[in-house]
Amino acid sequence: MTADAVLSRIDDQLTPALDRLMAFLRIPSISTDPAHKDACLQAADWLVNDLRSIGIAAERRDTPGHPMVVGHVPGDGPHLLFYGHYDVQPVDPLDLWETDPFEPVLQDTEKNGQVIRARGASDDKGQLMTFVEACRAWKEVNGTLPCQLTFFFEGEEESGSPSLIPFLKDNAKELSADIALVCDTSMVAPGVPSIASQLRGMLKDEFTLHGPRIDLHSGHYGGPALNPLKEIARIIASFHDETGRVAIEGFYEGVEEVPDELLRQWQNCGFDEESYLGSVGLSRPHGEEGYSTLVQQWARPTLEINGLWGGYQGAGSKTVIPAEAHCKLTCRLVGDMDPDAVRERLRAHVEARLPVDARVTWDNDLDGSPAAVMDISRPEFERARQALSDEWGREAVFAGMGGSIPVTRHFKDILGLESMLIGFAQEDDAIHSPNEKYNVESFHKGMRSWVRVLDSLSRRT
Amino acid sequence: MTADAVLSRIDDQLTPALDRLMAFLRIPSISTDPAHKDACLQAADWLVNDLRSIGIAAERRDTPGHPMVVGHVPGDGPHLLFYGHYDVQPVDPLDLWETDPFEPVLQDTEKNGQVIRARGASDDKGQLMTFVEACRAWKEVNGTLPCQLTFFFEGEEESGSPSLIPFLKDNAKELSADIALVCDTSMVAPGVPSIASQLRGMLKDEFTLHGPRIDLHSGHYGGPALNPLKEIARIIASFHDETGRVAIEGFYEGVEEVPDELLRQWQNCGFDEESYLGSVGLSRPHGEEGYSTLVQQWARPTLEINGLWGGYQGAGSKTVIPAEAHCKLTCRLVGDMDPDAVRERLRAHVEARLPVDARVTWDNDLDGSPAAVMDISRPEFERARQALSDEWGREAVFAGMGGSIPVTRHFKDILGLESMLIGFAQEDDAIHSPNEKYNVESFHKGMRSWVRVLDSLSRRT
Repeated sequence: MTADAVLSRIDDQLTPALDRLMAFLRIPSISTDPAHKDACLQAADWLVNDLRSIGIAAERRDTPGHPMVVGHVPGDGPHLLFYGHYDVQPVDPLDLWETDPFEPVLQDTEKNGQVIRARGASDDKGQLMTFVEACRAWKEVNGTLPCQLTFFFEGEEESGSPSLIPFLKDNAKELSADIALVCDTSMVAPGVPSIASQLRGMLKDEFTLHGPRIDLHSGHYGGPALNPLKEIARIIASFHDETGRVAIEGFYEGVEEVPDELLRQWQNCGFDEESYLGSVGLSRPHGEEGYSTLVQQWARPTLEINGLWGGYQGAGSKTVIPAEAHCKLTCRLVGDMDPDAVRERLRAHVEARLPVDARVTWDNDLDGSPAAVMDISRPEFERARQALSDEWGREAVFAGMGGSIPVTRHFKDILGLESMLIGFAQEDDAIHSPNEKYNVESFHKGMRSWVRVLDSLSRRT
Repeated sequence: MTADAVLSRIDDQLTPALDRLMAFLRIPSISTDPAHKDACLQAADWLVNDLRSIGIAAERRDTPGHPMVVGHVPGDGPHLLFYGHYDVQPVDPLDLWETDPFEPVLQDTEKNGQVIRARGASDDKGQLMTFVEACRAWKEVNGTLPCQLTFFFEGEEESGSPSLIPFLKDNAKELSADIALVCDTSMVAPGVPSIASQLRGMLKDEFTLHGPRIDLHSGHYGGPALNPLKEIARIIASFHDETGRVAIEGFYEGVEEVPDELLRQWQNCGFDEESYLGSVGLSRPHGEEGYSTLVQQWARPTLEINGLWGGYQGAGSKTVIPAEAHCKLTCRLVGDMDPDAVRERLRAHVEARLPVDARVTWDNDLDGSPAAVMDISRPEFERARQALSDEWGREAVFAGMGGSIPVTRHFKDILGLESMLIGFAQEDDAIHSPNEKYNVESFHKGMRSWVRVLDSLSRRT
């Protein structure tokens, strides 16, 4: 195949590829911290120069926040857009890092072989570089790239992407393509190549339950007083039934069971439920009865309490009946669940359960987004799956994801662009945590994977 | 009666009596604040001098904390011990005070007539001075006091009374008497003289529910993860049934219904349920169905959540499933309820409801004390009730109290001494809050009440 020589070159050139990644990792591009604004500029410029060194016409595109980087490769055949982000998470708590987060090192480990350790090694500098390096090797071997390509990198993914939507809207025509490729996800298990084909959506909400006009003394008023802490507990307890199912009327509207074929793939995807749960101190799944851990976290909606508070939290005891109690929650959404409808039902559920003398207020600044379900019937998905299976010697799976990747939603809504999420991160990469790492195997076989995917997608059938 | 001349003197000498109280109130004897240690000494010395100025042999008795003040009046007839406390609560938030908390002022008010406004005006300097001033007037009119008296004042009531138990034990013989009189309680309604004859006990407890080993991401783990916030809400919701009754097995052991005669008194005591609840924003009692507000807070046990927390409490949203959730609670106890047995049952209730993978830890530093029920069959109670009824022109009531006054328990346990709690404070005195006040009527008729009570108790039948 055309790609064989490219794969060989990747094997030969692993060391310089790692060197380039390490140079990129040395730039402390923490997007959420204003003190690192210059570093973000520097990272964007580094990417522009790296793309130009492959002969790709790339430029920094400034925004009110951190800049975008856009590069174009003209050509025939399908038009692919590749997305990644050059910004990284903050590094605190710094004292838990065993090495300098911005002085990347290669380390030999028992569990993962050689790893590259640094902030951003996995999320997302290491991952995005698998694609860039695949293009470099292709270009160096063949003199051209196999199809029309657009590179699109942002520097605000870890800080809410405030410039993303306006930029996509302002540059919709320039950024149009046939399909988007995103390298920002994990493999479902070590060695199991994975295409994330469904991501849960999310609805955030928060309420305060108000009871007495003021905090009361639990001696004087205890008994006759309405206690907001007791009442909020009662309401929260009503959110689920005994089987772990959400008990809000109409909550499951738009939810479908996982098709048998997909379920079969998931069952054989190598996901180790026992070790996944055991690593965080759990012995069994605690969600809806009758669903496996994977189905519970990839394909079933949830209502999770993320914060709950009221009354006294200091040392010792305080005989108070507080005037208020507070609850933050998020719902993960699947299928066709409509965030607005779910919000309305959730609120109606709470309001119907308020006792006399209580009232509830809601935070109206929290948003929601529906689930993203990729159209895996498109031929690109099956081709990519085959390419990944060839590289890893293992059937690749269409996996779900418990979390959300908002950019895919914006690509769909603004650009009409389907996304294919292929990533090589591992569950233990410690993204967002101290001592982040990326397996050198992920990097190496990731580059090789993209060569095969590019080859497969660019062929005209 | 012997007392008539004394009552007249009290009427004549109201102004100098108020002046003495104001001098006492100027001393900022905040016991919990080490910066006010000298002020506590000064308040103790002020009391010693005030008692000596009536001809009572009094002295300051130092302790590892703030000193006690003890004074003795030898004599025939019954031996009464009078207890009060010269320390006061802190004054924060200071900016909510309309006058200097330690610069007492007389103010005319629409609702309460003339009031004296200062920290401690009601709790407990104004109240304890009603007794001291009654004795002064008696002595000035009659040259002697009517019976054997012991004065006992502490300066640590507002900071947990750490020196009280050792002092009582070390001086048990000296402090023995026939009955203790305590002036540190309220009237059940304006104009209704009240003897507190039953005080609820209290049990404090706190638990932490532990779930996953670490905080988890509610996208990745939401569904299969055990959520401690959901589980703690479920457990708290199980503490009460739908009628407001505590649903812990055996919780009500030792609880008796209020005797009909007492119930009748309470029903006619002038307590205004609507205004009592309405003043804090409630329209009806929220405790056990079938019991009035007064019965719920005086004679029924409670389980109140005083603090509840876990997860994220900051602005916006955080997709966390926390590793832990926390709950602080107190039970108010009545009748013969045993704090240790209730603690055991409470804990068993929680532990029986833990899901797989959860565990609970308890704070073992929190104490408990049983309810105090006075022996109102003793003749002193009926005599005092008659004396109070005469003064106020209104049948005095044996009232309950929702809170606890631990000193009465220690008098009983260490000295074998029954307490009679007679106080003239009003619900709106704002004790422990900014702008504390004491009605001049409470002070004036309080002094007069004690003259009548002294007269009545000191007579040999």
